[in-house]
Amino acid sequence: MARGRRPGASDTRAAVLAAARTSFAEHGFRGTTIRAVAAAAGVDPALVHHFFGTKDDLFLAAMALPVDPREVIARVVEGPVEDAADRFLAAFLGVWEDPALQPALLAVARRMLEPGGDRLLAEGFLPVVVQPVGARLGLDRPEHRMTLVASQMIGLILLRYVLRVEPLASLPADVVRATCAPTLQRYLTGELPDA
Amino acid sequence: MARGRRPGASDTRAAVLAAARTSFAEHGFRGTTIRAVAAAAGVDPALVHHFFGTKDDLFLAAMALPVDPREVIARVVEGPVEDAADRFLAAFLGVWEDPALQPALLAVARRMLEPGGDRLLAEGFLPVVVQPVGARLGLDRPEHRMTLVASQMIGLILLRYVLRVEPLASLPADVVRATCAPTLQRYLTGELPDA
Repeated sequence: MARGRRPGASDTRAAVLAAARTSFAEHGFRGTTIRAVAAAAGVDPALVHHFFGTKDDLFLAAMALPVDPREVIARVVEGPVEDAADRFLAAFLGVWEDPALQPALLAVARRMLEPGGDRLLAEGFLPVVVQPVGARLGLDRPEHRMTLVASQMIGLILLRYVLRVEPLASLPADVVRATCAPTLQRYLTGELPDA
Repeated sequence: MARGRRPGASDTRAAVLAAARTSFAEHGFRGTTIRAVAAAAGVDPALVHHFFGTKDDLFLAAMALPVDPREVIARVVEGPVEDAADRFLAAFLGVWEDPALQPALLAVARRMLEPGGDRLLAEGFLPVVVQPVGARLGLDRPEHRMTLVASQMIGLILLRYVLRVEPLASLPADVVRATCAPTLQRYLTGELPDA
């Protein structure tokens, strides 16, 4: 029951969202146009505007992830803090290696890296995903420690997923997990120099 | 003796380059126009084209750093491999914390992060700065290890210098050095899981 929508509207919305995710992931926010998304979805640009509003609105709609960050965070913070880094990497890689989720994540990552995209990092990734982990793990200096965690994770995302730099891009996920866990665990709970 | 150039040409070139560095650093490659650079330098856009050619040419000219990567690398590789990470960070931070160098470095970093900028990373930062260190230190699996080093350094550059995320942005450079050195030293010479 499409409640007043004409038949096919939900299919059209899904096609537009899929085309938008692909375009944002491949070309970034600036390189994506409503016109190109409409063309890829086989609809009129006016219909995209009608359904989704501005390009910003379309981006937000396209980025609505079928994953709840709170569930991912819960998996990390439930358990001993001594191996929280390993659980963090397992949860993180579980999401990023999922082919159903990666296009939207890539689009968000690319958007963060474009001029003006820092708000997405400052108001998205850091407060929604990274900082709650530090606070709920009960770390001392949680913002300091979680920003260091973020510095490694962002470099990893960039080289492995966005730029696909070898040999990091082709490394099995469990090797990435075991390679980076000691780095993150030290940032979480190790002795660090005073600021 | 300006060898055939009319008086003031070298001042004009310097003003254009300074305006270009500022614009590339603040707005990235795509967000910079010859017209805006010319306006900021107080010259005609045609003069910018005359002096520097295309926007790509202008970018390359603006990015000509008053630092020779080979000298920086030499400081890292001369000395025991057991504390090469500390020397790497010292050399790296010495360059990045220099107010005379930071605008050009920021411009390069921002360019790398824009769509299409991955060539600058793949053909610039990694082969010119990162990989020679691994090879000259005589590491086993040098590309694997140096890509891991790059993943931490790129995240650090992004959060500390490009996005200025606190508290990392305000951390004293020697604290950053001591905080990240164990991470990098493990990536350089520690036992790592097999790929």
